[in-house]
Amino acid sequence: MSTPDPARRNETSRRAVLVATLDLLQEVPYARLSIEGIATRAGVGKQTIYRWWPSKAAVLFDAFLLLSEAGEGEAPMLPDTGDLRADLTAVLRATVAELNDPRLAEPMRALATEVAHDEALAAAYHERLDAPLREAKRARLRSAQEAGELSADLDLDVAADIIWGPVLNRWLQRSCPLNDEYVDALVDTALRGMQRRAEAS
Amino acid sequence: MSTPDPARRNETSRRAVLVATLDLLQEVPYARLSIEGIATRAGVGKQTIYRWWPSKAAVLFDAFLLLSEAGEGEAPMLPDTGDLRADLTAVLRATVAELNDPRLAEPMRALATEVAHDEALAAAYHERLDAPLREAKRARLRSAQEAGELSADLDLDVAADIIWGPVLNRWLQRSCPLNDEYVDALVDTALRGMQRRAEAS
Repeated sequence: MSTPDPARRNETSRRAVLVATLDLLQEVPYARLSIEGIATRAGVGKQTIYRWWPSKAAVLFDAFLLLSEAGEGEAPMLPDTGDLRADLTAVLRATVAELNDPRLAEPMRALATEVAHDEALAAAYHERLDAPLREAKRARLRSAQEAGELSADLDLDVAADIIWGPVLNRWLQRSCPLNDEYVDALVDTALRGMQRRAEAS
Repeated sequence: MSTPDPARRNETSRRAVLVATLDLLQEVPYARLSIEGIATRAGVGKQTIYRWWPSKAAVLFDAFLLLSEAGEGEAPMLPDTGDLRADLTAVLRATVAELNDPRLAEPMRALATEVAHDEALAAAYHERLDAPLREAKRARLRSAQEAGELSADLDLDVAADIIWGPVLNRWLQRSCPLNDEYVDALVDTALRGMQRRAEAS
């Protein structure tokens, strides 16, 4: 069709803004990213960005959603092969690979620090990203509980914090290398206490 | 003595700068804190600050050291009453109280986010704050191992990450209330797997 489609044109501009944001984050730190710079790179007017997003952090958030493909569609799910240790190892190794990939790392680092300082963004982050992911973690652990792999009285929220928390922390604190060996040690140490004990103990 | 003492005068100015930084962080977010603002509040010239610190982040770091009284003196130690669960609960409850105290929380939040973005600062942070604290955590866990409270083959670094990581994460992510109930559930869930199993299991 040769008639212009305003909805499609808007969607094209919107994606251009988000992709420009991700591209620029490979070149400059988030603190030096400006709405003006994003507009120039995206080939849109600054006013277009201000019309759709209240702040630079809001653009970042949508760019991150685009990247993580979590913006729309079905809820996230973790693999469930029936072997919790194998599934957690696979998931955490994939997370570590993402955290070590600069294309993903820079926007994630920026988002993590914005969330720490901005309560409104923290609320959006939890509703759209963290809560669905947390439910997926709980669901996988619950399935292991039902299969008798985990203690029936385990607090699944705390268990998820214990399993996933250290990876995020090491990454944010840049404290130690994040690699597969660390993931294996983490899964091993975290799980050994959560697994169902022998009846005698 | 009435003769001026340059060393003491320098120390007085240095503390004035650090205290001014902490005071200002109760009023404005770190991103809006300026060297000029700190100088004015401290009653020193801007050049004095630039002479002693290479960046705003470096001032923040020293202010935080002043606050945590970790700048000089002996290495940190965790309580060791012989009851690991009780000691960890006490330590983590105290940490949670600090994280919920705005006087401590704002500089800590600023420092945590600067560390995430600044590799040089991350290195200083690890050398002067994190490494001594990590050694104290390891020492307390090692003592519990020697007393037979923890499994002899436990990876103490990973165990420390599992016990301390979730509290820091919840705080940075502003995801959930951080309170004594959470600490209790965390210590319980983390420890149950690390404790020595009955021989039969």
